[in-house]
Amino acid sequence: MTKPSRKSLAVPFTDVELTGAFWKERLDTVLETTIPTQYAKLEESGIRECMKRRDDNPPLYIPRNEHGFTQEIFRDSDAAKWIEAASYALRHRMDDTIVAQIEGIIDDLEAAQEPDGYLNLWYLRHEPENRWTNLRDNHELYCAGHMLEGALAYWQATGRRRLLDITERYLDHIRDMFGPEPGKRKGYPGHQEIELALIKLYHATGEQKHLELAKYFIDQRGQHPHYFIEEMQARGEANEDWVQGTLEYNQSHLPVREQTKVVGHAVRAMYMYAAMADMAAETADEDLARACRALWHDVVDRRMYVTGGFGPSASNEGFTEDWDLPNATAYAETCASVAMVFWARRMLDLELDGQYADIMELSLFNGALVGLSRKGDTYFYDNPLESDGSHHRWDWHFCPCCTMNVSRLIASVAGYFCSTGPGLAAMHIYGGIEAKLDIDGRPVTLSEASGYPYDGTVNVELGLDGPHSFTLALRVPGWAKDFTVRINGEAVTAFTENGYLRLNREWQDGDRVTLDLPMRGERLWAHPNVADDRGRVALRRGPLVYCVEAKDTPELPYLTLPRDAELATAKMNDFGGTVAIRAAARAIDTAGWGDDLYSPHPPRTDATTMTAIPYFLWNNRGANRMQVWIPESPAQAEG
Amino acid sequence: MTKPSRKSLAVPFTDVELTGAFWKERLDTVLETTIPTQYAKLEESGIRECMKRRDDNPPLYIPRNEHGFTQEIFRDSDAAKWIEAASYALRHRMDDTIVAQIEGIIDDLEAAQEPDGYLNLWYLRHEPENRWTNLRDNHELYCAGHMLEGALAYWQATGRRRLLDITERYLDHIRDMFGPEPGKRKGYPGHQEIELALIKLYHATGEQKHLELAKYFIDQRGQHPHYFIEEMQARGEANEDWVQGTLEYNQSHLPVREQTKVVGHAVRAMYMYAAMADMAAETADEDLARACRALWHDVVDRRMYVTGGFGPSASNEGFTEDWDLPNATAYAETCASVAMVFWARRMLDLELDGQYADIMELSLFNGALVGLSRKGDTYFYDNPLESDGSHHRWDWHFCPCCTMNVSRLIASVAGYFCSTGPGLAAMHIYGGIEAKLDIDGRPVTLSEASGYPYDGTVNVELGLDGPHSFTLALRVPGWAKDFTVRINGEAVTAFTENGYLRLNREWQDGDRVTLDLPMRGERLWAHPNVADDRGRVALRRGPLVYCVEAKDTPELPYLTLPRDAELATAKMNDFGGTVAIRAAARAIDTAGWGDDLYSPHPPRTDATTMTAIPYFLWNNRGANRMQVWIPESPAQAEG
Repeated sequence: MTKPSRKSLAVPFTDVELTGAFWKERLDTVLETTIPTQYAKLEESGIRECMKRRDDNPPLYIPRNEHGFTQEIFRDSDAAKWIEAASYALRHRMDDTIVAQIEGIIDDLEAAQEPDGYLNLWYLRHEPENRWTNLRDNHELYCAGHMLEGALAYWQATGRRRLLDITERYLDHIRDMFGPEPGKRKGYPGHQEIELALIKLYHATGEQKHLELAKYFIDQRGQHPHYFIEEMQARGEANEDWVQGTLEYNQSHLPVREQTKVVGHAVRAMYMYAAMADMAAETADEDLARACRALWHDVVDRRMYVTGGFGPSASNEGFTEDWDLPNATAYAETCASVAMVFWARRMLDLELDGQYADIMELSLFNGALVGLSRKGDTYFYDNPLESDGSHHRWDWHFCPCCTMNVSRLIASVAGYFCSTGPGLAAMHIYGGIEAKLDIDGRPVTLSEASGYPYDGTVNVELGLDGPHSFTLALRVPGWAKDFTVRINGEAVTAFTENGYLRLNREWQDGDRVTLDLPMRGERLWAHPNVADDRGRVALRRGPLVYCVEAKDTPELPYLTLPRDAELATAKMNDFGGTVAIRAAARAIDTAGWGDDLYSPHPPRTDATTMTAIPYFLWNNRGANRMQVWIPESPAQAEG
Repeated sequence: MTKPSRKSLAVPFTDVELTGAFWKERLDTVLETTIPTQYAKLEESGIRECMKRRDDNPPLYIPRNEHGFTQEIFRDSDAAKWIEAASYALRHRMDDTIVAQIEGIIDDLEAAQEPDGYLNLWYLRHEPENRWTNLRDNHELYCAGHMLEGALAYWQATGRRRLLDITERYLDHIRDMFGPEPGKRKGYPGHQEIELALIKLYHATGEQKHLELAKYFIDQRGQHPHYFIEEMQARGEANEDWVQGTLEYNQSHLPVREQTKVVGHAVRAMYMYAAMADMAAETADEDLARACRALWHDVVDRRMYVTGGFGPSASNEGFTEDWDLPNATAYAETCASVAMVFWARRMLDLELDGQYADIMELSLFNGALVGLSRKGDTYFYDNPLESDGSHHRWDWHFCPCCTMNVSRLIASVAGYFCSTGPGLAAMHIYGGIEAKLDIDGRPVTLSEASGYPYDGTVNVELGLDGPHSFTLALRVPGWAKDFTVRINGEAVTAFTENGYLRLNREWQDGDRVTLDLPMRGERLWAHPNVADDRGRVALRRGPLVYCVEAKDTPELPYLTLPRDAELATAKMNDFGGTVAIRAAARAIDTAGWGDDLYSPHPPRTDATTMTAIPYFLWNNRGANRMQVWIPESPAQAEG
C-alpha cells in the first residue's frame, strides 16, 4: 500500500506474476529443488530439532569456535528464513507438503513460547536465565526480525495468521523490554534485521507502533551511554574478550545519522542501511536520507566489487579500507549482495533514481544470483572474483544464512520489478512480468515481455479501465550506451531524467511501449586506486558481469586480452542457452619459457580464443579456475 | 689452506685487501658506525648482560610469545656474531676499544663455563637442569656454532686464542654428548649452523675430529628413530604443542641426501645446504653433491626473488610453494640472503661454475646488502619488493640476527672474491682487491681494479716471483650479454667455460688482463607461473637489481613502463654517486579518472620520467613507496 507521504513504493511480490523465461526457470528451480532440499537440510543438520522446546532436552553437542561462540544461537533465523522463502514459493504454487512442514514448525514455536511472549529457542533451551543479556553477540532481536519476516510472508501467501499472531505476541514482549520510555532498557540489536522487518509489518498492517519500535532501534544505535558497553560490563567482560573488538563491527560506533563511512560486518551494515532508507522515505526524514546517500556513495564509489559484491575480508565478514578489493580472497558474502538488493530497492522508494536501480540490478544478477547453483541445491557463501580451482559450492554450510537468503530473494524477486506512486508507475528491471497496479485508485495491468537479461528489447503493454493519465517511468540502465523508444510502433524522441524515461500522457487501454536497449559486450576498468585490478579489464554485457572459466578457456591464468580485441557475443549450448562473450586473446606460452625463473626475454604469447560466461553461472560444471578481471595486453592490428 | 682433495677453495678474507671505492666505503661504515653502535645495542638491549652467569642472578623479565617461546635463548649467538663481525673489522684496522669489549665478553664466558665444558648462558642462568633436552627449538648447538665462528674470526684477526680454547672445550663436551658412537645421544641441531662452523675449524686447524662431528650432524639429520620426536615425547609434549608443527620447518623430515625440495625456515635451510656443499667438496662425496645440486636448482629455478631474497612467508620465516613470490608481503629475511652467499661460495668450491657465482653476487649486492642502511646504523629484517611506504628500517630488532649477519658479511666480504686450486686462480666478483695467493706453493699477487658494481671494466694485474704457468679464471657474469678481453693491451679471442674465462698460459710478473663487461640497463621478466609478477618487469644493470622509489618517482604506484621505452643510465648525486636507470614512462591519470569505481573508459596516462635506483639503496631517504616489479604498458612509437 502506497502511503500518501511517499512518492513511491515497490509493488509487492504478491501483485506481480513472473512470465519471462529467465526468472521462471530460476523460480521453478527454487520451488522444485531448493525449498524441499533446504527443509531436508534443516532436518539433517539438527536445526529443525532446535525449534522444539522440551523440558527433558537431551544434552546437545554444541559446536563452539575458539572464542566460545556458537552458531546455534541463530538457528531460529534459519528456520524462519526457510518459512519466508517457502511462503513466497507457495504464493506461486500451493504445496500441501510445504504447508504441513511450516505448520509443524509453527506448532513447535507455539508450544515453546513463554507466557510473557518471549520466543528465542536458544535461550529457552540452554540458558533461560540469561535472556536479553547479550544483545551485542547473541542475535535474539535478529532472530525475532526473521521470524517476523517469515510470519508476514506466510500470512501474505496463505492468509494463515497463526505465526504472525505468535510473533506479534513476541513483539509485544520486546516492546515492553526496549524503548525510549523510562524504565525500558535502551538496547538494540547487535545484528540489525528487525528494523526492516518491523517497517514491513507496518506497511502490511498500518499499525504505527511497529514503525515506532523500528525508529527507536535505528535512532538508539550508537547513543551514549553505550548500551553494548554497559551490557558487556554487566556481564563482567572486557573489550579484550570480544573477538571483534570494535563497535564499528556492528555499526554502533556512532549514531546512525552521523555515519558516513561503510564499516564492519557487511550484512549487518546493509540491513541497517535498508531500514534507514525505508524509515527516511516513510517519515520524510531528510536528515536520515542524507546519511543514507552518504553511505551509499561511500560503498558504491569505493568499496564495491564489480560483481555487486561487498565486504572483502573474511575476518570481520565485512569492510576494510577504501579501494581494498582483492579478487582471489574476496569474501563478498552472498548475503551482503542480497542485502544490497534490499537496500537499493528502498533507496528507489526514497527517490526514483536510476543509480539505485543500477546497483540493485548489479547485485541481483551477479553477486546474489551466483549464490545458488543452476540445479538449485548447492550454494556459495563467499564469492571470490578469481579462483585457482579450489573454490567449490557447498550443499549446505555450517552457517546456512546465505542458502535461505538467496532462495527467499529469488522466490520474491517479483517484488523488485516495479513501483507505484501518485500518478506514477515505474519499472526498474525487466524480464517478463504481469503486474496488477493501483495508480491513483484505478487498476492498471502492466505487462512486460523481454529476453532480459540476455536481450534488451523490452515490450510493455498497458491494460487500463479507460483512458488514464500517469507517468510511465521506464529505467534506462546505466550500462545502456543508447536506446530507442516507440509507442504503439511509432518512434518517439524521449529523454531520461535520473536514469528513467518518463512517459507522461493519457494512456489508452492496450497501449504498447517498446524500449530498445542494445546490449553489447564491453570492457570495464576499475578506479586506478584499486591495486588488484590495475592493468586488467572486466567484461559486462547488459546487466551481467562476465567471468572466464578454465572449462571454456583452459589458458587461465595465462590469458591476456588485447585492448583492441573485438568482443563478440554468442549463444551457448550450456546453461539452457546463455550468451557468452568471445574474443581473440593471447595466452602466455609457458611451455616455451624454459627453466629460468627470470629472463631478459619477455614471455611469448600465442593466439587463442577467450570465452567468458556470466559470473552468476560459474562453477556449475565443477570447481575450476575462474577470473573476472583479465590482464590486458597491448592492442594488436589483427586482434 | 687448499686440501689436495679439493679442486679449489675460497681465498680467506685474511689474504685479501679491499682497495675499490664501493666496498671500502661499505667497510669503513661498518668499522666506524656499525660495529660500535651494535655493541652499544648489545648493552642497551640487555644481551651483553645475558653473557654474565651470576649465582645471585637478579630476576630477569623474559618476554615470551603466545607459544611460550623466548628469543632470549639465542642471545649467545647475537654476542658471538658481533665478536665475529668485530674481529673481521679488527683485521682491517686494529681498535683497542673493540678488543677490550671482546675481551670483556670472553672474561664472562670463561667465568660461566662449566667444568665439563658446557657453555650456554640461557640454560646456565635459567634452567641448568634442562640442558640438551630440546635441541629442536632451543638453539644450544646453533649458539655453539656461532661462538665457534666468532672465536675463529677473533683468533685469525688477532692471534688471540682464549675464546677458541673455551669453545674447543665446549666442543669436546658436545662431542662427548652427541655422535654415532654407542652410548652417545643421536641429536643434532634444530637450527643448523654448527655444521659449517665445524668445517671452518677443520680448515683452520686440519683436525679431522671437527670434520667428523660436522659429518655426523649432517648425516644424522632426519634419520629414524627421529631424534626430535623422541626428545619431544621425553618432554611429555605432543606435536600439537609445537607451533611449527612440521619437521620440514627444520629440514629434518628426510635424511639430507634424500632432500630435493627447499622447504621450511629459510636460514636453517641455507646454513645446512652450505655445510652440505662444504662437506661434499671436502670429502669428494658425490652423493651429497648431487643433493646440493638438486636443492640449488629447486630454489634458484622456482623459489627465489629477483633480488636474491628467499622465503616469502613470515609465518615460518621460510619457503611455501613453487612460484609463490608475493612482492608486498615478501619476508625475504636479510639473513637468508646472507646465508645464500655462504652456500653459493661453497658450491663454487665444489665446482667452479658461474651459475653459483651469479647467485652469490645477486644475493650479496641486493638481498643481503639492502639489510644495512648507507649510514650503517639501521637495518632491514624482512625485505619486501614493494612497499606502500610503511616499511621502515629498524635501529635494532627484537630478534637482531640480521643486524650482525649483514655486518659480519660486509666485514668479511674480501673472502668472496677469489679462489685458488691446483694450477688455478679464479675471480668471482670484482670491485678492487689485492690478494696474496698461493698457487702450487708459489706466491702470486692478484690486483684487481674496477668501478664494479657500477662499471664493468675490470683490470687485473699479476705479481709473480717469476714466470708461472697456471689458469687465471675470470668470471663472465650471467648478466653480461657480451665481453672483450685484452692481455697486456692486446685483444685476445677467448671463450667461457661454465661462466669463466679460463686464461691458461705461462704468466709473467706484471702481466695485465683487461676484461670489459659492458653494463646496460635491462628488463627482466619472471617465469609466467609467478602470478605476482605477470605483466611486470624488473630492471637490472650489471649485478644490481633496481627499484623505483616514490622519492624520485612520485607517480608510484600508478607508474607503467612501455615495452619500448629506452633505459638510460645516469650518475646520481645521491648516495655518493650511484647509477640510476631513467626511462620515459607513463603514469595513470588518477585525478582525471573521476568518481566512478568502474568505468567503460580506460584510465588515461600521462608521460613522466621514471627513475630507478639500486634496490640495496632503497629506504635511505626515509620510508616511502617502492616497487621492484613495474607494470608494463604497451609499446609506443616515441617512448
